[in-house]
Amino acid sequence: MSRIESKLAELGLTLPAPPPPGGNYLPFRVEGKTLYLPGAIPSREGKVQYAGKVGDDITLEQGYESARLCALNLLACAKLALGDLDRIDHVISVSGYVNCVPGFPDSPKVINGASDLLVALMGDDGRHVRAAVGVAGLPAHSATEVQMIVALK
Amino acid sequence: MSRIESKLAELGLTLPAPPPPGGNYLPFRVEGKTLYLPGAIPSREGKVQYAGKVGDDITLEQGYESARLCALNLLACAKLALGDLDRIDHVISVSGYVNCVPGFPDSPKVINGASDLLVALMGDDGRHVRAAVGVAGLPAHSATEVQMIVALK
Amino acid sequence: MSRIESKLAELGLTLPAPPPPGGNYLPFRVEGKTLYLPGAIPSREGKVQYAGKVGDDITLEQGYESARLCALNLLACAKLALGDLDRIDHVISVSGYVNCVPGFPDSPKVINGASDLLVALMGDDGRHVRAAVGVAGLPAHSATEVQMIVALK
Repeated sequence: MSRIESKLAELGLTLPAPPPPGGNYLPFRVEGKTLYLPGAIPSREGKVQYAGKVGDDITLEQGYESARLCALNLLACAKLALGDLDRIDHVISVSGYVNCVPGFPDSPKVINGASDLLVALMGDDGRHVRAAVGVAGLPAHSATEVQMIVALK
Repeated sequence: MSRIESKLAELGLTLPAPPPPGGNYLPFRVEGKTLYLPGAIPSREGKVQYAGKVGDDITLEQGYESARLCALNLLACAKLALGDLDRIDHVISVSGYVNCVPGFPDSPKVINGASDLLVALMGDDGRHVRAAVGVAGLPAHSATEVQMIVALK
Repeated sequence: MSRIESKLAELGLTLPAPPPPGGNYLPFRVEGKTLYLPGAIPSREGKVQYAGKVGDDITLEQGYESARLCALNLLACAKLALGDLDRIDHVISVSGYVNCVPGFPDSPKVINGASDLLVALMGDDGRHVRAAVGVAGLPAHSATEVQMIVALK
């Protein structure tokens, strides 16, 4: 078991099955030492777990959990790409989208759900640059969508 | 004529003139073997063809056509950058923005208009990772905006 | 003083202190000859200077100033990363997000505030590809958020 997966187990988490793409796109592209991942939604076994708008029917805490689940799904795509998650050297960047009510100011607190998990699993190697924005709508009413670029060993 | 342009002709499509940038930005940046393209809107000869919000005055089908036209404009920028589209090795990533009503859940179906065209033209080399999100507004009321990163031979 | 900082002084501008990250993310990641920067908001000394929605309580002119301040904050992050801004070779790409009323069509005019400054400071080396979109909400009610990727010498 990889270092990252051992850490997941310590946190009481398991890697989900990689989510099937929700459109005509790939679950990963490897370019030399860079792994590009697609936007992941908070689905588990094909079902969206957090649907609705943060600030309305989804609380900040649920939004945080939603972003965390997006990050788990990204790691599942990374495992599909790499076989072994320990081939990850570090995370480069995260783009986080929050399905929110107009004027919602707390997208960073929501997307911390993804960032905190990456740092909990990889320490400083999980740290990254990031943009977090609130949007009008996301696939299948998902509360969050998170995308990631990763540097490989 | 390049392989990609032959395929365009087969599909009854022609490469438009590269759209003039709608602000202080470039139509392309080439970094080693990576081609960065700007966000393209669904314009033809300087006029936006699909203006409005998907889910309101723009249907899903029109949104799909709009995303397809954005992809054509991106290919026009790529031709401007490369001279010959066959210098494209494969598409790395696509970012798709849909100008939509709040809560619109079908951004993937709209942005498939761009992705399907890239795959129709290039086969597996046209496949890519992707994020598709619904936004509050786009340049000149465009229904869609699509951006792309491409790997060169 | 670096060429870019001399030019800033000519324009009557000074580099602000690098903004503290507003969440669990880094102020930069350097990958070989590429500098990745996070989304920057229009803050100065920890206080957001342009808060609200462009098209409502924030005018187009204020939005432009807001995007310009975001670009200054990005340069502050770049200085933190590089020590000397003259290690920048050129700007590759800019992503601009405008906190706007639904249907706002002028995100390019707003994000020109960032792009114009980069070009004023660096000439052709400041030019970049770009996406500019209008979003539902931004961190701490910021009027704009701007992210940037830079090529190093």
